[in-house]
Amino acid sequence: MHAVEPRQLANAIRFLSLDTIVHAAEGHQGVPLGMAEIATALFTRHLKFNPADPTWPDRDRFVLSNGHGSMLLYSLLHLTGYDKISLEQVKSFRELGSHCAGHPEFEPACGIEVTTGPLGQGIANAFGMAVAEAYLNARFGAGLVDHCTWAFVGDGCLQEGLGQEMISLAGHLKLGKLILFWDDNKITDDGSTDLSISEDVAARFRVADWHVVEVDGHDIDAVSAAITLARQDPRPSLIACRTVIGRGIPRVQGQRAGHSARLYPEDAQATRELLGWPHAPFEIPADILGAWRAAGRRSAADYSAWQTRLAALPAAERAEFERVQAGELPTGWREVLTDYRRKAAADTEPKPGIFASAEINDLLVGVLPERIVGCADLEAPTSHKRGLAAFTAEDRGGAYVHCGVREHLMGAMANGIAAHGGAIPLAVTYLAFSDYERPAMRMAALMGLPVKFVFSHDSIGVGKNGPTHQPVEILASLRAMPNMLVMRPADAVEAAECWEVALELRRTPASLIFARQALPTLRTTHSADNRSRRGAYVLAEAEGGARAVTLLATGSEVQLAVEARRLLQAEGIPTAVVSMPCWELFEAQDAGYRSAVLGEGCVRVGVEAAMRFGWDAWLGPRGGFVGMAGFGASGPYEQLYAHFGITPANIVAEAKRYL
Amino acid sequence: MHAVEPRQLANAIRFLSLDTIVHAAEGHQGVPLGMAEIATALFTRHLKFNPADPTWPDRDRFVLSNGHGSMLLYSLLHLTGYDKISLEQVKSFRELGSHCAGHPEFEPACGIEVTTGPLGQGIANAFGMAVAEAYLNARFGAGLVDHCTWAFVGDGCLQEGLGQEMISLAGHLKLGKLILFWDDNKITDDGSTDLSISEDVAARFRVADWHVVEVDGHDIDAVSAAITLARQDPRPSLIACRTVIGRGIPRVQGQRAGHSARLYPEDAQATRELLGWPHAPFEIPADILGAWRAAGRRSAADYSAWQTRLAALPAAERAEFERVQAGELPTGWREVLTDYRRKAAADTEPKPGIFASAEINDLLVGVLPERIVGCADLEAPTSHKRGLAAFTAEDRGGAYVHCGVREHLMGAMANGIAAHGGAIPLAVTYLAFSDYERPAMRMAALMGLPVKFVFSHDSIGVGKNGPTHQPVEILASLRAMPNMLVMRPADAVEAAECWEVALELRRTPASLIFARQALPTLRTTHSADNRSRRGAYVLAEAEGGARAVTLLATGSEVQLAVEARRLLQAEGIPTAVVSMPCWELFEAQDAGYRSAVLGEGCVRVGVEAAMRFGWDAWLGPRGGFVGMAGFGASGPYEQLYAHFGITPANIVAEAKRYL
Repeated sequence: MHAVEPRQLANAIRFLSLDTIVHAAEGHQGVPLGMAEIATALFTRHLKFNPADPTWPDRDRFVLSNGHGSMLLYSLLHLTGYDKISLEQVKSFRELGSHCAGHPEFEPACGIEVTTGPLGQGIANAFGMAVAEAYLNARFGAGLVDHCTWAFVGDGCLQEGLGQEMISLAGHLKLGKLILFWDDNKITDDGSTDLSISEDVAARFRVADWHVVEVDGHDIDAVSAAITLARQDPRPSLIACRTVIGRGIPRVQGQRAGHSARLYPEDAQATRELLGWPHAPFEIPADILGAWRAAGRRSAADYSAWQTRLAALPAAERAEFERVQAGELPTGWREVLTDYRRKAAADTEPKPGIFASAEINDLLVGVLPERIVGCADLEAPTSHKRGLAAFTAEDRGGAYVHCGVREHLMGAMANGIAAHGGAIPLAVTYLAFSDYERPAMRMAALMGLPVKFVFSHDSIGVGKNGPTHQPVEILASLRAMPNMLVMRPADAVEAAECWEVALELRRTPASLIFARQALPTLRTTHSADNRSRRGAYVLAEAEGGARAVTLLATGSEVQLAVEARRLLQAEGIPTAVVSMPCWELFEAQDAGYRSAVLGEGCVRVGVEAAMRFGWDAWLGPRGGFVGMAGFGASGPYEQLYAHFGITPANIVAEAKRYL
Repeated sequence: MHAVEPRQLANAIRFLSLDTIVHAAEGHQGVPLGMAEIATALFTRHLKFNPADPTWPDRDRFVLSNGHGSMLLYSLLHLTGYDKISLEQVKSFRELGSHCAGHPEFEPACGIEVTTGPLGQGIANAFGMAVAEAYLNARFGAGLVDHCTWAFVGDGCLQEGLGQEMISLAGHLKLGKLILFWDDNKITDDGSTDLSISEDVAARFRVADWHVVEVDGHDIDAVSAAITLARQDPRPSLIACRTVIGRGIPRVQGQRAGHSARLYPEDAQATRELLGWPHAPFEIPADILGAWRAAGRRSAADYSAWQTRLAALPAAERAEFERVQAGELPTGWREVLTDYRRKAAADTEPKPGIFASAEINDLLVGVLPERIVGCADLEAPTSHKRGLAAFTAEDRGGAYVHCGVREHLMGAMANGIAAHGGAIPLAVTYLAFSDYERPAMRMAALMGLPVKFVFSHDSIGVGKNGPTHQPVEILASLRAMPNMLVMRPADAVEAAECWEVALELRRTPASLIFARQALPTLRTTHSADNRSRRGAYVLAEAEGGARAVTLLATGSEVQLAVEARRLLQAEGIPTAVVSMPCWELFEAQDAGYRSAVLGEGCVRVGVEAAMRFGWDAWLGPRGGFVGMAGFGASGPYEQLYAHFGITPANIVAEAKRYL
């Protein structure tokens, strides 16, 4: 086969993308046509990958952070030979059920490393992948883990605060194998970038100690040379590529319409004429396709050498590597939690809710070395650092990432770590600031990444710091999110049970939510089974007759329900207390169990220091609620509970209202 | 009275703050003791303010963005003579009901310009205040509006993405009257800033075209000279102040514990000895207090000159200024909306939901010149720019702020504009990205700022862009938030009704949520009264007998309920359709109205292309739901509705299930 001109390789991306977008009558041509040469340089000369084994652990990771340019990715996957991205699949772009969705949807088996679209998320995920790589490289050695993380990024991702947080921390941590390609096309969906930005983006990266190379993004050799420089530099690199948006389409290139304006067959034809591409729509000449397929085999030697190294490892070492890659838990972890539960049941000393989580995680340090803990400005009050060294520019073996006051980056980093594989990410901060992290939490839920989002300071129990720091609506807002387990344990025993369930999750993130204030032990008898696993259970059954009242509570309010039950029983009213650490798990139980726990025909009262929103699903026709009706206030927390009427006496009164 | 040494003025702040924090046994000493000299320079030599008239429209705005240092603000307010911040109030710091809450809570009458605490919000609010000032300055002239906006800021605010978004856009817009004081103390709550940042913060500001002055933050004269330079420079200014956290407390100054570690009377005593302050706790010598009170009168001449200028204005001009300052609406605005409603009812052409909002806002351009519209990367698809010029560095008369892809900043800017007064802010973006803006939305709700948050692309109706862009949980998450009206109109008539209600709000923000896809007109008969005002109403009553079924729907799904009703009625099942554009308004109606609308004893079916979460409050014991059970998918939207079973046929089936 004669040598194919590199520009024809780029044009293959260009026309496959263009034909598909015209066919779909919708799409974003700006990126695939503007970054075709950049992608050609990366995928044909540098990327370490194997389309025949898309999830090869030591592959380079490629993230299309400007996810609206999804056709660029699908073109590359098809051209380089990913089985699942056949030409038929490409043609089904944006149709229901296609692998080629409007935005890339996480599907590693297809070569889609992460879901992108919401701007800023992709580069922050890439940052997390680079953290995971560095950690695993330190843990298992460069023979098993030694790869780059590449991301394509547009202006939008860099305007987002999330992107800015990433720039700052990646430079600080000197993540030298993280390399971004900036599609500097001077255009956003809103028009010229001049409308909203005038800073020198490259200089901004340099301030954060990034290595920056500026190149013509349509010069394949120049981009390739820049990549070589970037790989050599110990700092993370920005390859700033000057590009023309939608390059090649005469009517829209370099203009706002180049982003995503509707294209027609005439546009495709005009582009063919301009670029000298005489082939029919969707026709890729055999020599060009062959060259692309050869690029897809470019890492064959690396791949087999890696397999050889893996096979040569001592059995235990290999098994450990394969275990963490598979996301499997080691032996012994469950016993650690069971043992903790047993001791916690016997411990009568109240302790801050979050400290139980800290203690549990401290016990896991030796058992689960694949845990990576990110924390946003909160080491002291939550203590999830115990027993861990910091992950720094100098020490990649540390498993604790000081994220600074950057909650959003922390969440997206955790997603990137989870998507990378080989590590279990935790992200720890105050519940009130989960809103800062929420867009990343949504992505975790959407992708089904088993990130553990850990929160402290979960209610008015925060006290004097006041309403800004007191969640009242946040439990509901998280419960509303699909595929997110929201867990709010009542004591240290439930904390261990919830951690046990959370660690077992493979395709679902969990929010583990703890009180700042001290909580008494309510589960004072050790039970062999994990009672939180069913989401809700009868903590104390009604006595002296058929159940008249069920008090349903979570977290720090379960103790109030227990006290209210005592008062009601003393008046001869048979009352049960149901602890509900996780609504989603309870909802998944069979109707019989749910009905038995909730109690039929009785009064039900929900008790939670939060808004009622969502509770009615559990309360039935004679349902009351004791909780918050608005934001909190600044004051000693015991006074706040009284002030807002979240007391045993009011629970009793609410129950009687419906009796 | 002999001259008081400036350092004694600073020490008055220091000891009043310290004594209070020791008294409260909790607080954050780092900021008040570390920024005492900076505050002294600003408040005694530069700030334009009048404690006797705290809400003087042309006062300088002062924002304590590092809100945990609240005692600094309370000390300043007390010392300069704000009536409501008496010594008794100061002593009640962090007690329930005090003006001196754990974090500053919005109360302009006390001199508290904005609620701060969640990091990054304060400086972004300050940015919004500076935008409002520039706009009002252009509109009313420098004789009425010509003031600075000052903000104190710590490392946390600058690490937050929100802070970074602010730096970028403030530099771009050349907001020269925005001046920040950075408390560069090298310490966060987590320890040294070196743990999480190594970039040159001053250089990062310079890249964004800020003017930067670096000074010793404990040298009052140097800070004052820097302020003079900052005021002269046409760019926004950062005064980078090198400080010692908790300065003066021997045990903790300059250390992590300087941030907020518990202090004891011995600490206060040791500080007295170190700094030579022989006075008893809470005792401020008369000469020092006198000098502070004199500082509180420093703008007396400016104040009276301003009043004179206001009084000298032509009556109409003065009335207009006073109207917008009071937040009152002009005559004629309601008629514009009523007229739109009348025409919309007669318009049978379906139109994209968001276009109705765009048309309404276009009509308001001439009527409500106090509207300032911020938009994040979305001008084209929502068209809320129509009729407006851009607010730029060169043209302050434009009322449309191109926010770039910075949703969070947009929301916080809107809060700052609302807190400033004299303008009505709108913030427009996609509903899927409201999560990025959510922390600012929470602050609007908490402060009771009447911001209009406008969202498009509200459901799976977004279609092929896929699940990242399709809200399913976001309606619920916003409805869970206290003091936020969530409005989802079903057609252009309801859109105008909801806008009418939203514009009337004085102490409540609203989220106005619109579909991207075309919606038919359902309210084809003009009604004199605004039916959306009650939150929900019977759009079509059951016929042919007592109501057997109530279909409850919002937004784009009301049309499906109407069609389902037709099918049910055709089978002889008397069925009503209730449109529920705003749950919060409906909840505020009397029980009789609610009961009549919902229907008692009948089957109720909720219909919304979103999660069921929250709906059970309306559905009663025989309640069904047709909507989403998880995230969306990429595909043509009509197919998605069928795929997820949100169809008239399924609504009929769901109703029959409970009949």
